[in-house]
Amino acid sequence: MATAAPLQLHADRLLPCDPVVRDVARRLHLQVRDLPVVSPHGHVPASWLAEDAPFRDPTSLLITPDHYVTRLLHAHGVDLADLGVGRSEADGPLDEAASRRAFRLLCSHWSVYRGTPVRYWLEVQLAELFGVRVRPSADTADEIYDEVAAALADEAFRPRALYDRFGIEVLATTDDPCDDLAAHHALTEDPTWHGRVVPTFRPDRYLEVGAPGWNALADRLGEVSRVGTGTWAGFLAALQDRRDHFRAHGAVSADHSHADARADKLTQPEASDLFDLARRGELTPAGATALRRHLVWEMARMSAEDGLVMTLHPGVHRDHHTPTAARFGHDVGCDIPRTVEFPAALKPVLDDFGTHPVFQLVLFTLDETTFSREVAPLAGFYPSVYAGAPWWFLDAPDAIRRYRAAVTETAGFSKTSGFIDDTRAFCSIPARHDMARRLDAGHLAQLVVEHRLEEDEAAETIVDLTTTTPRKAFRL
Amino acid sequence: MATAAPLQLHADRLLPCDPVVRDVARRLHLQVRDLPVVSPHGHVPASWLAEDAPFRDPTSLLITPDHYVTRLLHAHGVDLADLGVGRSEADGPLDEAASRRAFRLLCSHWSVYRGTPVRYWLEVQLAELFGVRVRPSADTADEIYDEVAAALADEAFRPRALYDRFGIEVLATTDDPCDDLAAHHALTEDPTWHGRVVPTFRPDRYLEVGAPGWNALADRLGEVSRVGTGTWAGFLAALQDRRDHFRAHGAVSADHSHADARADKLTQPEASDLFDLARRGELTPAGATALRRHLVWEMARMSAEDGLVMTLHPGVHRDHHTPTAARFGHDVGCDIPRTVEFPAALKPVLDDFGTHPVFQLVLFTLDETTFSREVAPLAGFYPSVYAGAPWWFLDAPDAIRRYRAAVTETAGFSKTSGFIDDTRAFCSIPARHDMARRLDAGHLAQLVVEHRLEEDEAAETIVDLTTTTPRKAFRL
Amino acid sequence: MATAAPLQLHADRLLPCDPVVRDVARRLHLQVRDLPVVSPHGHVPASWLAEDAPFRDPTSLLITPDHYVTRLLHAHGVDLADLGVGRSEADGPLDEAASRRAFRLLCSHWSVYRGTPVRYWLEVQLAELFGVRVRPSADTADEIYDEVAAALADEAFRPRALYDRFGIEVLATTDDPCDDLAAHHALTEDPTWHGRVVPTFRPDRYLEVGAPGWNALADRLGEVSRVGTGTWAGFLAALQDRRDHFRAHGAVSADHSHADARADKLTQPEASDLFDLARRGELTPAGATALRRHLVWEMARMSAEDGLVMTLHPGVHRDHHTPTAARFGHDVGCDIPRTVEFPAALKPVLDDFGTHPVFQLVLFTLDETTFSREVAPLAGFYPSVYAGAPWWFLDAPDAIRRYRAAVTETAGFSKTSGFIDDTRAFCSIPARHDMARRLDAGHLAQLVVEHRLEEDEAAETIVDLTTTTPRKAFRL
Repeated sequence: MATAAPLQLHADRLLPCDPVVRDVARRLHLQVRDLPVVSPHGHVPASWLAEDAPFRDPTSLLITPDHYVTRLLHAHGVDLADLGVGRSEADGPLDEAASRRAFRLLCSHWSVYRGTPVRYWLEVQLAELFGVRVRPSADTADEIYDEVAAALADEAFRPRALYDRFGIEVLATTDDPCDDLAAHHALTEDPTWHGRVVPTFRPDRYLEVGAPGWNALADRLGEVSRVGTGTWAGFLAALQDRRDHFRAHGAVSADHSHADARADKLTQPEASDLFDLARRGELTPAGATALRRHLVWEMARMSAEDGLVMTLHPGVHRDHHTPTAARFGHDVGCDIPRTVEFPAALKPVLDDFGTHPVFQLVLFTLDETTFSREVAPLAGFYPSVYAGAPWWFLDAPDAIRRYRAAVTETAGFSKTSGFIDDTRAFCSIPARHDMARRLDAGHLAQLVVEHRLEEDEAAETIVDLTTTTPRKAFRL
Repeated sequence: MATAAPLQLHADRLLPCDPVVRDVARRLHLQVRDLPVVSPHGHVPASWLAEDAPFRDPTSLLITPDHYVTRLLHAHGVDLADLGVGRSEADGPLDEAASRRAFRLLCSHWSVYRGTPVRYWLEVQLAELFGVRVRPSADTADEIYDEVAAALADEAFRPRALYDRFGIEVLATTDDPCDDLAAHHALTEDPTWHGRVVPTFRPDRYLEVGAPGWNALADRLGEVSRVGTGTWAGFLAALQDRRDHFRAHGAVSADHSHADARADKLTQPEASDLFDLARRGELTPAGATALRRHLVWEMARMSAEDGLVMTLHPGVHRDHHTPTAARFGHDVGCDIPRTVEFPAALKPVLDDFGTHPVFQLVLFTLDETTFSREVAPLAGFYPSVYAGAPWWFLDAPDAIRRYRAAVTETAGFSKTSGFIDDTRAFCSIPARHDMARRLDAGHLAQLVVEHRLEEDEAAETIVDLTTTTPRKAFRL
Repeated sequence: MATAAPLQLHADRLLPCDPVVRDVARRLHLQVRDLPVVSPHGHVPASWLAEDAPFRDPTSLLITPDHYVTRLLHAHGVDLADLGVGRSEADGPLDEAASRRAFRLLCSHWSVYRGTPVRYWLEVQLAELFGVRVRPSADTADEIYDEVAAALADEAFRPRALYDRFGIEVLATTDDPCDDLAAHHALTEDPTWHGRVVPTFRPDRYLEVGAPGWNALADRLGEVSRVGTGTWAGFLAALQDRRDHFRAHGAVSADHSHADARADKLTQPEASDLFDLARRGELTPAGATALRRHLVWEMARMSAEDGLVMTLHPGVHRDHHTPTAARFGHDVGCDIPRTVEFPAALKPVLDDFGTHPVFQLVLFTLDETTFSREVAPLAGFYPSVYAGAPWWFLDAPDAIRRYRAAVTETAGFSKTSGFIDDTRAFCSIPARHDMARRLDAGHLAQLVVEHRLEEDEAAETIVDLTTTTPRKAFRL
């Protein structure tokens, strides 16, 4: 067997090719390389940090929960079940042999990740965090598996130790409105814990009044809030109660992801009538859509009152492949983006709260066409609106460059959200934030070399983008 | 206080980073750097040049009328009233103290313009025109204000002197069909005036038959044209009369900006019936849209007959924030782009006039997706169609590069419109045209260095883009 | 007269500007420069190779049949008739004098092609294939015409000699379902022929049940297949019969190009009822659209059964300019792209066959917005889906770069289709494939220099993209 190819991270990775621009970018990156991580939106469970239990094995840490990783293997014919996807609590995670087989599937398909950010994040994790020095392949899979598994057994790889090592200043989780936030509470009560983990209010399921199971969710909301949800007024009060609960546990934002961005306003009697129909199970699909859109407007109203920053992540076909969703559940990689429209959709919210002193709205999109056409023009006029960082499929080097090129000329830098990792993959957080910093350094360096910005201004800007910008957009 | 940062314009600004490409671009830019400015579409009032009165103060010249400048300050919480926006004739402009305060607001928010073309244009104006040598900031605001104010008091900063200094060959204004064009007339009659200022026929308000106040406008059109507008035939004749009036005063184009680009044809009886309903105030919104779309077709027909180049600037939500429009009026920075569709929308016009020897149609868009998908394919087939330069939010370095990259491969260079400044900011005109020339130089230089074009061809092309191209597209 | 400008091909043409990146790109291009051409989709007639007759003259080879060439001349006022477009069999091709005049029109308009791929392909053909050493212009037109005409008289310029010289490994044609494929058959029976020319099943006209003449086509389908097409079941059986005929003659794919990508499923009774109405000439436009969409689903079903790769080229306004289509017929340059939507449109097909072991689906688009939003996410999840190469107006250097930048980060390289020339211009085939290889080399070189990929991986990738990738996507 030939010697395995080495795995090496170059200090200049992701910086621009031109040597003069790269020099400037290197200096700019140095300004922010070691600054703390501000992560205002993501999907790491708070319980990991509250419990601080060791991670179980390489596959359940790096592969199974990460649909960015699993979807491309699936596209090459790998069965998601072989990666541990969709297993019930009763099943438990893959056993040692199956976990090792899954890891071999990843390594033997290493070439399919060429040119993707998934490869970049995994490489940085393997090389920097786990000290792996060989390129993943069928031949090196077991060696790498062993190396990662050995590291995970070490105290230094417990969640809290990693939180410190990653330099995280604040980490937001994403939580169901009925969640008691016990893990968040445990952390704040724990005198040995010095980090900051804040919940995020994510009420989508409670606003999709036409979805199966909604009535049970509305009931549950009533139980948890101890506010009767039999009436429209009660339902709104219960939602406000849970928002207050979240705020009391440190939440700074409420996140919303529906098929579109619309927030069409109904009169209160109209909304109340539709709500009553919904509770009786008699609502038409059109009525359900109308009430959901109105509820988004109500969420904006509450944000203007209680100060939770409103974030929108609209425009996804969830569970596009019905048989996969039926077999494996949600969030397993078969969500597909769709076109989205913001200005008409959000006019009711922006007419009412666009210049409200408390209201803040961050717009994320998977439809790049909206960056220059809609998102930047909105953020460049409304004091309340921020242009969200590239999300999901667009959280990738070339897409991030396109975002900066499309947004900056209309909205500048200071009406953007700062980087959002939005990840379930805890160990990828520093790699993701560093990637964004490198790309911002490259973008700014080009402006400097084209004499569109002085270098002292670029240096100040990249520090802002890493610190004050996300803190302002998310009220941190 | 520390020494203020200097404000310096680099000779290579906006040229590509790569040294070899930059060298070529520098040579190409030199070919056109000092050529006259051809400005076939913009919003400078002809009265400024007719009256040649001194500009009043820095704020009313550089800030108040320029929604590019004011909107980004508004996005950072500045009240538009503090910038002098929306003041009535009775109010008059801001007084000296308020004007100075407004200028301080601009300078103290200088960092929010980083990466925007607004900053670039202002910098060039401050440095080249007004001789400012310090970077705007809260500390330098008063010093810069004084410097600009002192310059404005000088004869050399009167509008006509600047017209000459800017090397303007022709400047188009944008005018209401009922305008008597007295200022244009005064200029042509003035033996001391040697420039060329031409009006542009902009009939939008007269075609929006469903808008409040339309009947009064139709009456006024009848009075001014002395053609009765009580009938459909009369209304068309009155519009043609005003087009003739504009042509007699030098107009070369008619400009149209509606929510969409549609030009659906009605039969004359259908149009006549809808017109009668409109005049009686009984037209439905659907009827108003149908008649407006047909009127766009009639405008195309008239363009094919009288030779006024038809320009389309469709696809904007005007006055997106209702409270701002109510308080400050139109064109104050809260217009937001929307998607636009050209091929189906324009089929009736192009079937009838697409190969007509007189008809010319220039398509502008704020929806970049149409550049490669619709605009370039249309301009690359129809002799009448030209791909308009990037407009408004897209009149910016990176967007202009995307435009050239998206349009050229299908439509070449010679079916584009040449640069359009479309500005109210008179002093920014040379900076804007020079920006476009620098970016064209960069685009062409890359083609040369990639051996897709010889340098002699690139040199000829950039001269054409600056001279023959806009003259041909606009029949100048 | 001045000496004519030379026509020279630079060895580094289309490679990136930066010297370091260019060096890497040059090495990568060398890996694939001389590899055979795999052309899985195009429009060269099989009869050319079966008959191996000499090409008649420069104009009928390089201008008349190539709407890429003729449309831009038309956009500059040239009458398509003067280029030989739209002539009937009875008319025959242009005579010598007219052919020469047409060639002069091309050469005297040479500047209008600056920046277009048409110029690039023609230059490579003229310089490499025909040995032309002067730049086309009014002055050099006759000289070049003579040079090309002289070459065409040579045995070495017969179609089969060129096929060998071009290094073609396999060439797909595009054929009507009722075609007897006699030319393909003749080639396989010819012991002196060693190439591979395969037909492609293109049933669009038979699925457009609402178009004029469809009933005659359905009758003809019945005659040719000897399966009665008077019933829905018979019609489907007849289509399957012709697919089998194509497969027996080497076909590997079936190509579909309708106004949209929808494949909405009807029940068999619904489809049968609509079919009966269609056969009686009583189908409404809505019914015709519904049945056409269902037929696309049936084509997908058959592809899952018989293994013909399904390729979609949707979203074009065919014959946008009615008078031109009336005078000159189809495919003469007035087709204009439109927006397209894939995920909802294809859900019925992907729910049923998205993970089917036999089904393969290649998605082409002229709507670039779908690359990152739809095509790459679909190809990055569904094992059956491949992201088709940039098509038609997008088969151009900058567009190809945008495609790689938009698709790779989500779908990698191995779920793309490989390059598709899709051309009628036989002599341009090597120039087109080489262009794609140069651009892939440039894209990969940038990844290498940005330390996102090692050079050995990039070298393996570009070889794959040229060999295994198209063979896998098209089952070659």
